[in-house]
Amino acid sequence: MIQYYHINGELTPVAEAQLHVTDLAIMRGYGVFDYFRALGGRALFVEDYVRRFFNSASLLQLEVPCSQEELKERIQTLLDQNGEEKAGIRLILTGGYTTDSYTPVKPNLLILQHLYASYPAEAYERGIKMLTYDYRRELPVAKTINYVTGIRIQKWLKENGADAVLYYDNDTIKESDRSNFFLIDQSGKIITPKEEVLPGITRMKVIEVARELGFTVEERAVKLEEVFEAKEAFMTSSIKGVLPVVSMDGKAIGSGQVGENSRQLGLGFEALVERYIMAKV
Amino acid sequence: MIQYYHINGELTPVAEAQLHVTDLAIMRGYGVFDYFRALGGRALFVEDYVRRFFNSASLLQLEVPCSQEELKERIQTLLDQNGEEKAGIRLILTGGYTTDSYTPVKPNLLILQHLYASYPAEAYERGIKMLTYDYRRELPVAKTINYVTGIRIQKWLKENGADAVLYYDNDTIKESDRSNFFLIDQSGKIITPKEEVLPGITRMKVIEVARELGFTVEERAVKLEEVFEAKEAFMTSSIKGVLPVVSMDGKAIGSGQVGENSRQLGLGFEALVERYIMAKV
Repeated sequence: MIQYYHINGELTPVAEAQLHVTDLAIMRGYGVFDYFRALGGRALFVEDYVRRFFNSASLLQLEVPCSQEELKERIQTLLDQNGEEKAGIRLILTGGYTTDSYTPVKPNLLILQHLYASYPAEAYERGIKMLTYDYRRELPVAKTINYVTGIRIQKWLKENGADAVLYYDNDTIKESDRSNFFLIDQSGKIITPKEEVLPGITRMKVIEVARELGFTVEERAVKLEEVFEAKEAFMTSSIKGVLPVVSMDGKAIGSGQVGENSRQLGLGFEALVERYIMAKV
Repeated sequence: MIQYYHINGELTPVAEAQLHVTDLAIMRGYGVFDYFRALGGRALFVEDYVRRFFNSASLLQLEVPCSQEELKERIQTLLDQNGEEKAGIRLILTGGYTTDSYTPVKPNLLILQHLYASYPAEAYERGIKMLTYDYRRELPVAKTINYVTGIRIQKWLKENGADAVLYYDNDTIKESDRSNFFLIDQSGKIITPKEEVLPGITRMKVIEVARELGFTVEERAVKLEEVFEAKEAFMTSSIKGVLPVVSMDGKAIGSGQVGENSRQLGLGFEALVERYIMAKV
């Protein structure tokens, strides 16, 4: 049972995990976060996520009030205390209790544990449908807490029978609201946007897996039109792993079915996860 | 003394005004707010601010959990209870305690009272210096809590001897981080951006004042180059009123001194404030 969060260095009962309303996340949406899974009671790829969290903080001129090592220890303490084998872990660093309503002060550091989340299994069999949307995330390399556009357009996506969004800016595709995006072109080459996207940990791991499997991977600017000429497409995220995409703006991608390469990459990523957890437990 | 905030319909001692960390403002920066002054124990132009707050909420698909009338009553209750003649009032509406880390639920409504804030008096005598910055606020018509860029660039502004930022996008000027922006051209015409800016209440009042004083006011797209050909410039906000701008990117605007028209508009706005408060008290 999730009984505790870890708030500013203290294990805190979930119900008591509160912030004063002068926190800069509440006043000005100013904060960064990260999210990853735990399996077998161990945080998955935690070194990478913690490193990214520190980098996001630095891009917002916020100082994490402990070392990366100490943060990893606190995460493990929380997992041990709650005693769940599988979980989601969320790190949040806010601008702290501001005195002038604008200037960051001593940040608040929150470690939350969530129920283990997974994307519906049938989505991996049938693939998902996406719609494009003209938007570029602000400060895309930092994982800020700002999801105004992503949350606002959920209703529009549902009304149009879509499962997820693909952001583009000036005819160049970027990413989804909480996932990176990949194409496989007709020659079998794997292509994914490089600049102005979140440096996804699952993205990075899937690129490693793809190269091990012998794929050529190109990280570069990707034009919107390339999506419609692709053989396959998929999204990557901590929760989704490798999730096949079969339609964009109502047009089939490739055969309109889940592609063989996407499936292979999904299995390869799962095997990598398995190896990581086995080595830790 | 500010002893109370008004949280979800209840007068709440300041120290106890907290939100649980699952609030969508903390998790996803999802919320709207508004800010205005109180003078003589009465909220200034409160009808306009409350109307804008409801509009911002609606643009984020959030429902304010009371009527506009009820909200105005709660604001007055808070002012009466704290007993300060002069104050700042902040309304915040968040996405509420989300259960899936993403979907807005029952919003949390906060009414905070701050100390009365004012911009240093000498700034109105010497005028302020601005730097341009390439940025367009996300969903600019809504007053969302997202100030990631505005807060991040404060250090850069200071290091470059500037007092405030002017955002522009594709060579078209927009607004400052917390203020609207106006020019007065060589013919004495007042010009201010119309689209993709916050519909400022002080902006609107100053336009009324300007027209009463016989100025021609144009609300339209404004090119960056027009700034450097202007005779005068000024910013408007709840806290700043009419604040003269004398330099942009290190170049003098007009004479490089506070302009006569800006001064006149500032006095006209102050007189309007005076009339509003006198009618209410």
